[in-house]
Amino acid sequence: MLTDRLRAEFVTLLGTDRVYTDPVTLALYASDETPKSCIPEAVLFPASHDHVVGIIAIAGREKLPITPRGAGSGNVGGALPTPGSLVLSFECMNHILEFDPDNRLMVVEPGVVTGDIDALAATAGLMYAPDPGSGAYSRIGGNLAMNAAGPRTVKYGASRDHVLGLRAVTGDGREIRTGSRTTKYATGYDLTRLLVGSEGTLALITEATLKLIPAPRRIASLRVCYSDDRSACEAVIRVMRQPIVPYALEFMDRRAIEAVREYGAADGLPDGTGAILMVEVEGDSEDIPRHLAALEAALRGTGLLAVQSGFSKAEIAHLWTARKSLSHAVKKIAPLKINEDVVVPVGKLADLVAAIDDLGRRHGLPMVAFGHAGNGNLHVNLMVHPDDAEEMNRARACRLELIETVLKLSGSLSGEHGIGSEKRAFVALEFDAATLGLMRDLKTLFDPYGILNPGKKLPD
Amino acid sequence: MLTDRLRAEFVTLLGTDRVYTDPVTLALYASDETPKSCIPEAVLFPASHDHVVGIIAIAGREKLPITPRGAGSGNVGGALPTPGSLVLSFECMNHILEFDPDNRLMVVEPGVVTGDIDALAATAGLMYAPDPGSGAYSRIGGNLAMNAAGPRTVKYGASRDHVLGLRAVTGDGREIRTGSRTTKYATGYDLTRLLVGSEGTLALITEATLKLIPAPRRIASLRVCYSDDRSACEAVIRVMRQPIVPYALEFMDRRAIEAVREYGAADGLPDGTGAILMVEVEGDSEDIPRHLAALEAALRGTGLLAVQSGFSKAEIAHLWTARKSLSHAVKKIAPLKINEDVVVPVGKLADLVAAIDDLGRRHGLPMVAFGHAGNGNLHVNLMVHPDDAEEMNRARACRLELIETVLKLSGSLSGEHGIGSEKRAFVALEFDAATLGLMRDLKTLFDPYGILNPGKKLPD
Repeated sequence: MLTDRLRAEFVTLLGTDRVYTDPVTLALYASDETPKSCIPEAVLFPASHDHVVGIIAIAGREKLPITPRGAGSGNVGGALPTPGSLVLSFECMNHILEFDPDNRLMVVEPGVVTGDIDALAATAGLMYAPDPGSGAYSRIGGNLAMNAAGPRTVKYGASRDHVLGLRAVTGDGREIRTGSRTTKYATGYDLTRLLVGSEGTLALITEATLKLIPAPRRIASLRVCYSDDRSACEAVIRVMRQPIVPYALEFMDRRAIEAVREYGAADGLPDGTGAILMVEVEGDSEDIPRHLAALEAALRGTGLLAVQSGFSKAEIAHLWTARKSLSHAVKKIAPLKINEDVVVPVGKLADLVAAIDDLGRRHGLPMVAFGHAGNGNLHVNLMVHPDDAEEMNRARACRLELIETVLKLSGSLSGEHGIGSEKRAFVALEFDAATLGLMRDLKTLFDPYGILNPGKKLPD
Repeated sequence: MLTDRLRAEFVTLLGTDRVYTDPVTLALYASDETPKSCIPEAVLFPASHDHVVGIIAIAGREKLPITPRGAGSGNVGGALPTPGSLVLSFECMNHILEFDPDNRLMVVEPGVVTGDIDALAATAGLMYAPDPGSGAYSRIGGNLAMNAAGPRTVKYGASRDHVLGLRAVTGDGREIRTGSRTTKYATGYDLTRLLVGSEGTLALITEATLKLIPAPRRIASLRVCYSDDRSACEAVIRVMRQPIVPYALEFMDRRAIEAVREYGAADGLPDGTGAILMVEVEGDSEDIPRHLAALEAALRGTGLLAVQSGFSKAEIAHLWTARKSLSHAVKKIAPLKINEDVVVPVGKLADLVAAIDDLGRRHGLPMVAFGHAGNGNLHVNLMVHPDDAEEMNRARACRLELIETVLKLSGSLSGEHGIGSEKRAFVALEFDAATLGLMRDLKTLFDPYGILNPGKKLPD
């Protein structure tokens, strides 16, 4: 509970313009991209590492829960306040502290917009590889907290693979520096990767040293149409076994294609298309044709209907129309999507898609699946009417069955969105008791008062 | 202390042929690749995960230290017994449990020889990327414990980047499973990467799920000769900023070249060569010439003397003669090498090499530097006569100055060899007290009785 005395203490620490308790601000910071909301006690806008240390000191002493927040663009409730919590917004810690092209690294505060990092890197022919769909507005601190990924992950890895080191503050106020400025490191325990993806439950990141890589040269796209899901999924296995690693390898299932057709964004799509792979390749002008030929050879097989290629920006944009219009198209099916973000080994993708089809039929729910097929990571959207209690019950049962299916296929609950508040009920299905117990003990070690993003990541 | 009663208990657990206390076996397992040795109390050869669980249960109860061991090929004392310890050799847990080419993964026991993993992967056109120099005999468990790397790390990353999941037993006997069989994962805390590189101090790995990637097609080599170190180091920066990531990018300094000349392995090396870069590129037959041209453009600059290329196996082997003969050549300088494995950001490589030159001169010691330049990781060998006490004193002072220099250059103690017993005195120079304290607390959490590889990784 934020008493007047405590409020005054935060004002003394941060300044009046960094402590908000007015209803409008509280309402603005009550929700993220989930349909839920919870009014916090206050919203704090630290401007420095020392501010974060000070906030944690007070919160620890008073046992006040902190909800860390970047742009609030996550969709699993990672930045959703819990009752009585203080939102700690990193929006004002938005400075790029250092850009060192020779060492291919950038040191940033957590509130920097992820897309700005990539844009600055590009001025020196470099790239920050992780490219979540929210990159134009999401903040790097949130991306690191959730181990965000995107289409380029198939070639370059996720956020965790592009951080060299961190500055952070644990729940009991320890100020730590992890990792190194080097691309190779065998000295201490790997605290860097432990913190990335820990969803702000172990420590708050106040500074990150990011690894940059040479930027792509030219990109070309293929839209590859198959008669059926299984044929497309089998092509994914073949593509991932050959040496030209695609720059993107995205999948759309039959129901996603139907949605796009109904939305009027299926221009040029052959009749009978039951699954699509979007494939991108990166290289110089001479590489591209040969690399495309290698990919086409791998993509060829049962059920292939058409391979459509795009080289210019306009051609590429046209090929991606169906995929890019998908998020709008699915809204026509039902007002709410329950978005799962499951991941399986690529060899099990066909089984997963078949199971989704079966689940949708048995539970009488439209289910749309698409996503990052090269990593076996599908976004499965259960389209529902939130006011229809009976349908919502069916959705709940369907969701549980989906998770159970994924785990049976040696998969995992989340490929890139994380757990947040929305998926933690399922976490105990994935981990055995000993492993989960150790994770809880880690949480207690880093955050003994339980003030850092409580109610997230691990089940109660 | 291993009493007769305890010995009998281990025999009951493992069988007579898995518990050795005879002087010959104890002597064989008393040392690793360091010049030191320490006779253990016993050598145990578990054959299964359950055996490891049983050993840890007894050791925990009796507070008996365990020294885990793969091939004993490490060179920082990671597998060096401590007084009173039991060596736990993983040599008999040497089975490949599963090879799944469609999902590009292999499940292995820790005693499998690393090179055998790569060889099996190659039968399906795949590769296990980490390639330590010891790969032909080192065991994967040791490689993972130390986060082993090698020349291919510049393109593909180190051991830590090629593990999907682990089965392991903590010091208090918790049997955990970390990670997933998927290439993307945002569910739990990243225990996998925390255990990789923890040098057997947190948990013993009993099973690893390794990530495989498509195998290289053709390889070509360049030997690039420069008049001086700085010119070569500046070329490294240029190479790493352009988009053709080399398959290897190795460096030899002036003193290394002199040693090779004296050894008679400098065939074809231009007069005046003061530094060499060995550059490899991977691709198909059509890629290779263009990729070499791109690399040559980046390699061109001040001080360049010659670019020598090799395409056939024989040509490549010839180019690598100087580099491969180096470990024998340096033995002619002095009988003992003190091998440091420092790493700096690549932009600081020239400063590091200049500092090494200066250190050698000031301390009157031959110092030979070579290694994985693309990652800024140099093996710095101080060549000494171990019986010359005065020289050994100078070497000690020189070594400390080297470490201090590396840290001033934003580098790290170890790029790939790890810390073991031999470098832990320096660890507190790299980490601040809070970070080191947290690492110690992690150690206590995973291993409350302090039985797992005591005296390694962290300073006392």
